[in-house]
Amino acid sequence: MRISLIGAGNLATRLGLALKAAGHDFVQVYSRTEGSAQTLADLLGAEAVEHAEALHSNASLYICALKDDALPEILKKVQVGNGILVHTAGSLPLDVLKPFAAKTGVFYPLQTFSKEREVDFRTVPIFVESSDKIVSYILKQLAMDLGSEVYEITSEQRLKLHLSAVFACNFVNYLYTVSNDLLAEQHLPFEVLKPLILETAAKVQTHSPAEVQTGPAVRFDRKVMDKHLAQLEKHPAWKALYKELSIGIHQRSKSSKQ
Amino acid sequence: MRISLIGAGNLATRLGLALKAAGHDFVQVYSRTEGSAQTLADLLGAEAVEHAEALHSNASLYICALKDDALPEILKKVQVGNGILVHTAGSLPLDVLKPFAAKTGVFYPLQTFSKEREVDFRTVPIFVESSDKIVSYILKQLAMDLGSEVYEITSEQRLKLHLSAVFACNFVNYLYTVSNDLLAEQHLPFEVLKPLILETAAKVQTHSPAEVQTGPAVRFDRKVMDKHLAQLEKHPAWKALYKELSIGIHQRSKSSKQ
Repeated sequence: MRISLIGAGNLATRLGLALKAAGHDFVQVYSRTEGSAQTLADLLGAEAVEHAEALHSNASLYICALKDDALPEILKKVQVGNGILVHTAGSLPLDVLKPFAAKTGVFYPLQTFSKEREVDFRTVPIFVESSDKIVSYILKQLAMDLGSEVYEITSEQRLKLHLSAVFACNFVNYLYTVSNDLLAEQHLPFEVLKPLILETAAKVQTHSPAEVQTGPAVRFDRKVMDKHLAQLEKHPAWKALYKELSIGIHQRSKSSKQ
Repeated sequence: MRISLIGAGNLATRLGLALKAAGHDFVQVYSRTEGSAQTLADLLGAEAVEHAEALHSNASLYICALKDDALPEILKKVQVGNGILVHTAGSLPLDVLKPFAAKTGVFYPLQTFSKEREVDFRTVPIFVESSDKIVSYILKQLAMDLGSEVYEITSEQRLKLHLSAVFACNFVNYLYTVSNDLLAEQHLPFEVLKPLILETAAKVQTHSPAEVQTGPAVRFDRKVMDKHLAQLEKHPAWKALYKELSIGIHQRSKSSKQ
């Protein structure tokens, strides 16, 4: 397909490169950030565009990978003609695209993307939603070109999916940060936690997380927990988190056993 | 060395098997849980013991891998003679062993252990503490026999280390559970989150977690966050967690940028 990219961030970069490798052609790349459009356009053999008005309507697919709040303002300026307009956001309904194109869709790859890290799309599930059967067919085909598992879900399901991903990725990463900061207080390197972090993620690939829950909170071991809480006196926010997460673990583990 | 194990849980099992594979001999295995001692003793070619009083003093090393609160009560009944007595707990000081032996130590492998999953000790850092130089030498040698990185740390450092591990492993696993439960509400399989979970853990192997933090909370994107909070109306505890973790992420990300 002839594709134009609206946005040149982490997701746009990774998705663009993967679609290019799968044989698709890129027409234009737009970004508000000076330089970003050019960098990605060069990689994709496309034209870089710094004003949304300069996107022309000769692509067959427009993939919009912008921040949620920037999307309506920028799409107002874009001419998609008969092209299909899709967004890649977890928490935006399909409907937000209605004012801007007749054929619309959502193409949501569930992964955390960095510009520096390559992503194997064959391991990335893609969630699509479409205004009609033709768009649905095209988006599924696109996901298959990437070698991805593809799922058709509603906007409501996608919102819950995005929320789950915030817990399993963004919040998890913050807990890694807290543990890093606690270690630093004792002049211990974050290095020592890395095998534990990998094994914790590996375990739930084959077991349900509730089933492999360990730690003092499962049996609500007050002696250990009180020692830990005493270590958090200087960090009231982490202390509150420690208590709430421990209560959550204990209650969930009781309910699993029933 | 001639080793007796006090405890036959996940850690005792994994550590016992690894030490056996490294060429050490096992004398006795004690467990309060009927059958557990026998199962592990069979694997180690040792004698199973169901009463702590029946542990005799002809081992050179006693490794105590019991739950924290069970430890003093059981050690009272054990005759270690001239043997070295070590425990494997994150949150217990070395001192707790003083009443029971002249030569004492701590041998704390930082990993989450399951009876069903094999652990490659070469990737498991081991933290030791010792009553004297001889014990220190022996415990470091033991860690090296397993191919592990070994660190000498104080009881205070180990407590903070254990606390960090609770955040990076136990609490992380609970967040996986929450995401699993949220997906189930939309009839979506946990399967779809697995690549994201692995990639999130993989990222911090090469980057500091604060540096790779993503998600709506970093930029405190209220529109997305309000949509997510609205999804959590039925789960007040998770809603509170969502707010606190988001505030934590936002504040940490501001402070990193300063």
